[in-house]
Amino acid sequence: MTLDPVLARIDADLDASVARLMELLRIPSISTDPAYAAHCQEAADWLVEDLASLGVAAEKRETPGHPMVVGHIDGDGPHLLFYGHYDVQPVDPLELWDTPPFEPELQDTPKGKVIRGRGTSDDKGQLMTFVEACRAWKEVHGALPCKLTFFFEGEEESGSPSLVPFMQENREELTSDMALICDTGLYGHDTPAIVTMLRGMLQEEITITGPSKDLHSGMFGGIAMNPARVLTKVLSSLHDETGTVTVPGFYDGVPELSNSVRAQWEGLGFDEKAFLGEVGLSEPAGEQGRTGLEMIWSRPTAEINGMWSGYTGAGFKTVLPSKAHAKVSFRLVGTQDPEAIRASFRKMVADMIPTDCEVSFSEDLGAGPASVMSTESPMFDAARQALSDEWPNPAAYVGSGGSIPIAGYFKSIIGTDAMLIGFGRDDDQLHSPNEKYDLESFHKGIRSWARILAALT
Amino acid sequence: MTLDPVLARIDADLDASVARLMELLRIPSISTDPAYAAHCQEAADWLVEDLASLGVAAEKRETPGHPMVVGHIDGDGPHLLFYGHYDVQPVDPLELWDTPPFEPELQDTPKGKVIRGRGTSDDKGQLMTFVEACRAWKEVHGALPCKLTFFFEGEEESGSPSLVPFMQENREELTSDMALICDTGLYGHDTPAIVTMLRGMLQEEITITGPSKDLHSGMFGGIAMNPARVLTKVLSSLHDETGTVTVPGFYDGVPELSNSVRAQWEGLGFDEKAFLGEVGLSEPAGEQGRTGLEMIWSRPTAEINGMWSGYTGAGFKTVLPSKAHAKVSFRLVGTQDPEAIRASFRKMVADMIPTDCEVSFSEDLGAGPASVMSTESPMFDAARQALSDEWPNPAAYVGSGGSIPIAGYFKSIIGTDAMLIGFGRDDDQLHSPNEKYDLESFHKGIRSWARILAALT
Repeated sequence: MTLDPVLARIDADLDASVARLMELLRIPSISTDPAYAAHCQEAADWLVEDLASLGVAAEKRETPGHPMVVGHIDGDGPHLLFYGHYDVQPVDPLELWDTPPFEPELQDTPKGKVIRGRGTSDDKGQLMTFVEACRAWKEVHGALPCKLTFFFEGEEESGSPSLVPFMQENREELTSDMALICDTGLYGHDTPAIVTMLRGMLQEEITITGPSKDLHSGMFGGIAMNPARVLTKVLSSLHDETGTVTVPGFYDGVPELSNSVRAQWEGLGFDEKAFLGEVGLSEPAGEQGRTGLEMIWSRPTAEINGMWSGYTGAGFKTVLPSKAHAKVSFRLVGTQDPEAIRASFRKMVADMIPTDCEVSFSEDLGAGPASVMSTESPMFDAARQALSDEWPNPAAYVGSGGSIPIAGYFKSIIGTDAMLIGFGRDDDQLHSPNEKYDLESFHKGIRSWARILAALT
Repeated sequence: MTLDPVLARIDADLDASVARLMELLRIPSISTDPAYAAHCQEAADWLVEDLASLGVAAEKRETPGHPMVVGHIDGDGPHLLFYGHYDVQPVDPLELWDTPPFEPELQDTPKGKVIRGRGTSDDKGQLMTFVEACRAWKEVHGALPCKLTFFFEGEEESGSPSLVPFMQENREELTSDMALICDTGLYGHDTPAIVTMLRGMLQEEITITGPSKDLHSGMFGGIAMNPARVLTKVLSSLHDETGTVTVPGFYDGVPELSNSVRAQWEGLGFDEKAFLGEVGLSEPAGEQGRTGLEMIWSRPTAEINGMWSGYTGAGFKTVLPSKAHAKVSFRLVGTQDPEAIRASFRKMVADMIPTDCEVSFSEDLGAGPASVMSTESPMFDAARQALSDEWPNPAAYVGSGGSIPIAGYFKSIIGTDAMLIGFGRDDDQLHSPNEKYDLESFHKGIRSWARILAALT
């Protein structure tokens, strides 16, 4: 089955592909807000119906939260699974949107045409690149190129509470030769990427309690233990003066880069100054002696994501607070063990708490190890070549500082490798007002998947 | 003019005194909230009228904020000035009040009768102890015992922005032989006190800015400077391991206690364990080698009153914040210079800020030196004896950890000594829901002022 007529069909059908995406984008499937639950159902129904139009036997599968959509179609060659999510982030603050978030538009901008609206890039637009590639293939060749499973989630933006149980209960059904995930970005404007390294994450929330109630700092200041002071001692001790994290055992399982990966990353020409300059910074703040890409892709971190204590309003209130809080997260790499680090962190903190203070840690916060894909399967190099054929620059194997737990679940629960390929750009405004997806991302994304399907089958 | 019939009159007239106080308490004169400005006017009008009923020529004097009430009455003997404030704190959280804050009630409790409502203790109830003592004196003797000036403020609970200009502009009119201030408490349940040492205060608000906007800690964690981390370094360095404040020059002007004051304080039998036990603590947290009373009355402090950065809501958001904030206050003693300490603190902080972070400090936050009263005037010992005559235990000269700037202003602006006498108790719930003033505080407070007027004239 030849590729060229499929690519021609994709080009010819682009307007219709955009129109179908617009339909899906108009459904406000915000997963974190129960008020939008019916719209999540609606988005799942829309996908079931759209997959049916490809001849895929798809169904909505209820969970305690929002439904999954699972569809299968038989075929020759390898069995590929495609994952995407149909739910979107909330739209607050609404007043910062230039156009209504759920009234998507194709807009001309100085940088080219963009599809504007909530979910355009994360992840409805990306999800539809794969569906539209399949559609073109079907229309040209009368069948899809291989056996396919479609697996769409509706809770990705709200912590995926149903995902692991669902994957565990449907392990066999979700087994394939390779999982394809479209929820990442290009490496550079013209450089596609396959993410082969994802940092894991450990989240902790600390509460330190001193006095049993808020006190007046005139009456009690000097004699009463101030938990905010204790918290600053704890948090300021998380890094030493070289930027190294001080939690005992933290670096167990942190690998050094292989020479080949190091060489490849050096070839990417990462512009540290430009990357930091975009956000008003100039100097890498991580461990001494590490490159910028190492700091964000392959080195573990400890960050304060939030902290609060006492009076935080306008003016001044001389309160000596009863409690002080912080949210701290650790990004993990290699084989760092999240639960071992959690235990070590908690012990380190507890050891710093003086008499008259107590510390507690929130339960049920996230923990997941890093994912490092083995690129040994020839499918990786085949997909990389297919991407290189579509885009101006050759595709790169890259790391990602973020955590995309689904990739790890395919390995740990299903036993399948996962390939993370996506076409988002850095200025897509994910999770923010005025989210967009470049029409080029959508168009060349569809073409990329058509090429990858051809290459893998 | 004899005292006994005045005391008898006070006892006989107590119900009417309470009823008058209730009228004033029903006026919701919350000074910090512009919505209550008309009620502040109403409270001032009420006081003008009430003073007129004593024969005092009083008037409401407008300021850029809420009005002052100033009244004069001529008489023989020394010229005394009495200061109190008619404004009250906000009442949030309203749902924690057992009875409506501005519908005052006389309630029976296991510890005795209390007047319940906002402003009962701070400061309308205390203010009226003096007015009612004058009323009884007038009714028994047909005249007040000496020349008197009444000076009531309506902005004490909102930082007194008009106070200093007003005192400067009306210096001559506010000059007297001694200023009496009723806005403090008893030392113990049955032990009255004259406060002769008040800590000063310096307030600072720090904002540290790192990246130009909030970042995703996956994409930027490790490479981007986190201002929350910088803030914890700054705040955790404010004290060394012995509890000593590390700001350079901080202890310049901090005196050691004289032997006589030390001996008197030791005689008070301050129960550190009980004091801390009330708020769930057990160990003094201040400088090593200092007594509990020194820590709260005569030693300077540095406290974190508030801090905030990043995401502080429910759940988790892996933000790498752009900004981190803290409110820090210093309690000052002796001749510590607030502005010199402000400058030294700011330099110390600025020196700790790395490249890629900026620090700014809020302007217009409070600063005032400590007040140490000279008790050389025989009026002090006379008032102390009068208080001792009224209460079960003899009166003490004490310090106060809080800052009552008005006391210092009488000295620095008017050139008058001030005597701080009040009848509040530790469980009065000042600034909190269910504020109360013991009926005994009110009754014996009125009697105390009658005795003091007799003793000073």
